[in-house]
Amino acid sequence: MHKSEYLFSQKTVTCYFDAEFSHLRDLVKDASIIIVTDENVFNEHAKKLSVFPVIKFPAGEAFKNQTTVDHVIGELIKLGAHKNTFLVGVGGGVVTDIAGYVAAIYMRGIQFGLVPTSILAMVDAALGGKNGIDVGVYKNMVGTIRQPEFIFYDYAFLATLPVKEWINGFAEVIKHACIKDALLFKILEKYSLHDYQTDKTLIAELIEKNVEIKNGIVTQDEFETGERKLLNFGHTVGHAIENLHSIPHGHAVSIGMIAACNLSVQMNNFHANDAAKIVRLLAKYHLPVDVETDHEKIFEVLKMDKKRKGNGVQFILLKNIGTAEIQFIGFTDLQKHFKEIV
Amino acid sequence: MHKSEYLFSQKTVTCYFDAEFSHLRDLVKDASIIIVTDENVFNEHAKKLSVFPVIKFPAGEAFKNQTTVDHVIGELIKLGAHKNTFLVGVGGGVVTDIAGYVAAIYMRGIQFGLVPTSILAMVDAALGGKNGIDVGVYKNMVGTIRQPEFIFYDYAFLATLPVKEWINGFAEVIKHACIKDALLFKILEKYSLHDYQTDKTLIAELIEKNVEIKNGIVTQDEFETGERKLLNFGHTVGHAIENLHSIPHGHAVSIGMIAACNLSVQMNNFHANDAAKIVRLLAKYHLPVDVETDHEKIFEVLKMDKKRKGNGVQFILLKNIGTAEIQFIGFTDLQKHFKEIV
Repeated sequence: MHKSEYLFSQKTVTCYFDAEFSHLRDLVKDASIIIVTDENVFNEHAKKLSVFPVIKFPAGEAFKNQTTVDHVIGELIKLGAHKNTFLVGVGGGVVTDIAGYVAAIYMRGIQFGLVPTSILAMVDAALGGKNGIDVGVYKNMVGTIRQPEFIFYDYAFLATLPVKEWINGFAEVIKHACIKDALLFKILEKYSLHDYQTDKTLIAELIEKNVEIKNGIVTQDEFETGERKLLNFGHTVGHAIENLHSIPHGHAVSIGMIAACNLSVQMNNFHANDAAKIVRLLAKYHLPVDVETDHEKIFEVLKMDKKRKGNGVQFILLKNIGTAEIQFIGFTDLQKHFKEIV
Repeated sequence: MHKSEYLFSQKTVTCYFDAEFSHLRDLVKDASIIIVTDENVFNEHAKKLSVFPVIKFPAGEAFKNQTTVDHVIGELIKLGAHKNTFLVGVGGGVVTDIAGYVAAIYMRGIQFGLVPTSILAMVDAALGGKNGIDVGVYKNMVGTIRQPEFIFYDYAFLATLPVKEWINGFAEVIKHACIKDALLFKILEKYSLHDYQTDKTLIAELIEKNVEIKNGIVTQDEFETGERKLLNFGHTVGHAIENLHSIPHGHAVSIGMIAACNLSVQMNNFHANDAAKIVRLLAKYHLPVDVETDHEKIFEVLKMDKKRKGNGVQFILLKNIGTAEIQFIGFTDLQKHFKEIV
């Protein structure tokens, strides 16, 4: 086990790498730990988790809602959880979002830690302190930004991760490469998903690299006034598509990134060859590169995006592979290009 | 209109005194204002408020819950509220708590301001950034601590405040005097509720003084690690009583303060004469000084109090009138004294 510390506005977050779940108790002194997880993760790892009280909820994005939050809060009350209780979310992005949100609001805030068990949660969802739930079709419409005490990387959890979840996670890895790291992009071109699934050193290195990229951005701009917006690359159109079609987050982001690439070619002098490279890399990692969709409906949802500002939206466009920028695009302009980009 | 600024950890909060509601728009530049209020306040002040879009919910503590939060969030979505929307809560403590909480979680946080319309909200609920909702019998079980941009004091709202709400608010005024300000205690002994209801200068001075006391404490200890706990004087037993009996917050706090005074006499060398003075002052301001209650049930609810720490609770006891301190009291000790103090 080794660790990296990241300084946020209100606290230092410690990331423990190559860690083992059994060491968790040593990290949380004098506090009673309660685990929050979903039924899938619990069924796979019941023995590991059951040394602590466990609150479970059904797996899947459909349960990232207020009903689940009400359930977790009800269970915390039943367990007599108090200000000194330490909540630990063990699971994928839905679990880490719910755990962080409940910890932010229960008794006006209790301490929490995260044990991400999917690639997506390890490289993205568990990092940066954003938490929350969906409201109807609107993704993450409600939530807070609040950092955990720690993030705990036990790669043993990846052994039971389904292939489709590996693919899902690589969308965010490719996103990081596109907006911040041309070298990472080349490395991803060199290896394959199969390489990462079978080589423990390779995946450990990749995850640490991605933690560094994301935390590097978020520590600079925790409350998303500038730099942090770059992480929304692919997520504006992506979220809208995810709302309307029941497809995995990574798939939606893949299509969203291609839309943003096309828009970057049209409006930001991004080279068409580079856009093509990104499409090839996404396809190589088994991510979808197009979708049949209702453009008008998507556009309606997009208008309610959190990144909306008056009569347009702050879009993340590429300049080169590895360099992104924020551009305000009016809805009228966007609508003009919309059918060609998605 | 004149103002005082208070520096909190993340922002400066401006209190505008002797202000007029019509000046609200000048304070919030380049943002679209949405008002949140309850039906009572709206019915009394419909004309004043309707220059902005208004979200209403039924009045009363019974509506300080998740259902109301869901309703307000649904209305915000319908109104197309975005990151740049400015939420303004106009009302008593329930409204200011709901407005602050929704602003904290909608789109992971939007700006907000408060226009308290009751004595209780003016001297207490609107100040300090605590927001939240009740969960079943548990008061403020869910919420956050997050400061508004401003608090706006338009005393014209007091003209329509029912007498029982004046009485309700004076419980917190007397609390401030007991824990922090012996001189204020003497002033309260000198005047009567009727004096404050009829003399505009007197009530304006009293409110400013109480804003100063509360903000003085909260700016020192925003996240309640020490000093701020003093404000819980009367609220430990008070909240438990409020949960079990449908009585106004001020009534419950009055009885809770008397319980804390009795405990202070028994365990903290607080003078019995001073305890008697406090009982007389509460009675003078028409607050109840005893209640028929089920001691065992109260004790059960008290065990779930947010101020619980392991096998006891952090109780606020008086040393003198104007000086309070935090004492940990084990549940076994507390139970021993319990029937004599409540």
